[in-house]
Amino acid sequence: MAGERAYLDYNASAPLRESARAAMVEALAIVGNPSSVHAEGRAARRVVEDARQEVAALAGARAANVVFTSGATEAASTLLTPDWRMGRGSLRASRLYVCAADHPCVLCGGHFAPADVEVIPVHGSGLVDLDALVARLARHDRDRGIPLVAMHAANNETGVIQPVADIAAATRAAGGISVIDAVQAAGRISLNIAESCVDFLILSSHKIGGPKGAGAIVAASDLAMPAPLVRGGGQERGHRAGTENVPGLAGFGAAARAAREGLAHVAELGALRDRIEAMLARHEPAVEIFGRDAPRLANTTFFALPGVKAETAQIAFDLAGVALSAGSACSSGKVGPSHVLKAMGRNDAAGALRVSIGHATSERDIALLEKALLGLLARRERTKAA
Amino acid sequence: MAGERAYLDYNASAPLRESARAAMVEALAIVGNPSSVHAEGRAARRVVEDARQEVAALAGARAANVVFTSGATEAASTLLTPDWRMGRGSLRASRLYVCAADHPCVLCGGHFAPADVEVIPVHGSGLVDLDALVARLARHDRDRGIPLVAMHAANNETGVIQPVADIAAATRAAGGISVIDAVQAAGRISLNIAESCVDFLILSSHKIGGPKGAGAIVAASDLAMPAPLVRGGGQERGHRAGTENVPGLAGFGAAARAAREGLAHVAELGALRDRIEAMLARHEPAVEIFGRDAPRLANTTFFALPGVKAETAQIAFDLAGVALSAGSACSSGKVGPSHVLKAMGRNDAAGALRVSIGHATSERDIALLEKALLGLLARRERTKAA
Repeated sequence: MAGERAYLDYNASAPLRESARAAMVEALAIVGNPSSVHAEGRAARRVVEDARQEVAALAGARAANVVFTSGATEAASTLLTPDWRMGRGSLRASRLYVCAADHPCVLCGGHFAPADVEVIPVHGSGLVDLDALVARLARHDRDRGIPLVAMHAANNETGVIQPVADIAAATRAAGGISVIDAVQAAGRISLNIAESCVDFLILSSHKIGGPKGAGAIVAASDLAMPAPLVRGGGQERGHRAGTENVPGLAGFGAAARAAREGLAHVAELGALRDRIEAMLARHEPAVEIFGRDAPRLANTTFFALPGVKAETAQIAFDLAGVALSAGSACSSGKVGPSHVLKAMGRNDAAGALRVSIGHATSERDIALLEKALLGLLARRERTKAA
Repeated sequence: MAGERAYLDYNASAPLRESARAAMVEALAIVGNPSSVHAEGRAARRVVEDARQEVAALAGARAANVVFTSGATEAASTLLTPDWRMGRGSLRASRLYVCAADHPCVLCGGHFAPADVEVIPVHGSGLVDLDALVARLARHDRDRGIPLVAMHAANNETGVIQPVADIAAATRAAGGISVIDAVQAAGRISLNIAESCVDFLILSSHKIGGPKGAGAIVAASDLAMPAPLVRGGGQERGHRAGTENVPGLAGFGAAARAAREGLAHVAELGALRDRIEAMLARHEPAVEIFGRDAPRLANTTFFALPGVKAETAQIAFDLAGVALSAGSACSSGKVGPSHVLKAMGRNDAAGALRVSIGHATSERDIALLEKALLGLLARRERTKAA
């Protein structure tokens, strides 16, 4: 990676925050297993429990209701199961309701049989069709089990913010459990599970400036919990076995604190994003920005430039020193048409580009993006002329 | 942790090797998501694939047959499932055969119904009863599905080394799949899945001097694979979704290389362990060392001192600066009678102590252990006299 680079792909993975890095390096010196009772074990335990406090604070939850996982995907795979526990009894979720614009780890249906997964459409704005959700829940057959509703709070591609309170209220009215994928929302909009109807939140460390390899299930209470996915020892109060990722959780905790504190600066991030969009429109008035009619995250812009194929444009930007995304980064090198745009009724074969910014984005990054864009547009004109 | 400390609990978690630490710190600077196609993503991908080469080399496997997980427990939870895939078809494992001295993450039966898990006993030596395994497999009902046999290669408490080749051969003869939990064996005895009958190995990073939060499934081939436990994106060739733990895998890879190179020094470790056992016998001739009649790992000694309760002795050792274990460290602070000793027919209510050493163990550590032991034995005598 010679030369200047502008990293504008925070929604794929945010750069590690300095406080998270420092916490991890410190935690790397701790040799103990958090389950060991000796001093080294207790030191490791302390790191894990301190991190739990910070993650709980970010979500407005009690620390006891935070279950650490290896990431958001594991959290979703754990929660998206028909097999639930209520105290010593069992509880069956018979049908899963997801949103067409969800992340693949939710949209795939987890451990439900495909026939038991119902996909709720989104409007052209990118917002979930609440009426459709309510109508489907009204038809839910309670005799088979309760409904489980799993949807994202904010979209990873467009940044569109879903009506989480309405989703959760509709779920509760139908006697179901709501799971909100807050991976992209955390640190960008305020989350408070205690003051909401939401039953579960899913969080990811590396999307808020912590390290990859850590995530969490945040529960409103421990009344009903999913059967453990990862089984063995009694870690995480029996909800998730396996030795805890001590350095990863140390970094996650520090990032959660920084993300919570960073909420005060979201307006500045929004101003920066708006300037990026104005710059795009200045150089290409026909730029189309997706999800603009709905509430959006302050850090995300998802756009299409006429006559520019997103996949090749991404490579051109990369060569010019700008890291951005064509759709989401969910599986190795796979770039296909965006299922989010498709769900919004936009079957634009040329695709779209995503710029997502965050805590370390600077003026220099925007200048580099503008320079690369001008190069791209000039090449497009030359190709037209040829 | 003021004062001098001797960390002698490698089987619970080994101290991070310097090479692993350096690799992690370097990887913390990589911002990209390994699934992103830009330079930052490709840099992250390179770290993951380099680590895969190293882990494969430790196990004598092809890199393409290494599936990274968040740890050994997740690897076991993934493999211990009735739901398998063969190409595009499905394959059912109808019954799981485990060993009574297995680690809880295997002994719990993973995702099998409790009625479908059969526990094979061990002899007083700690070795699995192979005749019993063969007899049970002969009674296996093939019409319901294939047998799955999951057993440890080396015991975490006693260090007893199981006859892995015989377990794997018996499984293959019965048309089953063998899963060997090599967590404690890795880096201590040579593993070569290509030259064995074993179908799957389970590895853990933090038991070989890598960081907590990483592990692997190593397959002999990809002919039959368990249905993914963690579902979403297409990472790990579709076998395990979720953004890879890039810094954790960097450390795991470096530790795997060091562990492989360290195999040349296992005899020295064995000599150190033998000196510890001779020291124990010198100060307490009635010391009982468990698993001594079977082949054992060079780094482990599991012993009982007459008139000494393991749980309180562990605390005394800790106060004297020595971290060792009373049984295994599998769930928060839970210390109970060892299921391994019980399986060996030893229902010693006083329990046993485990000293497990490794790459950084020094003469100084042994001296501190001896000093703490003398203090403990002196207190025992005073209690007797009182």
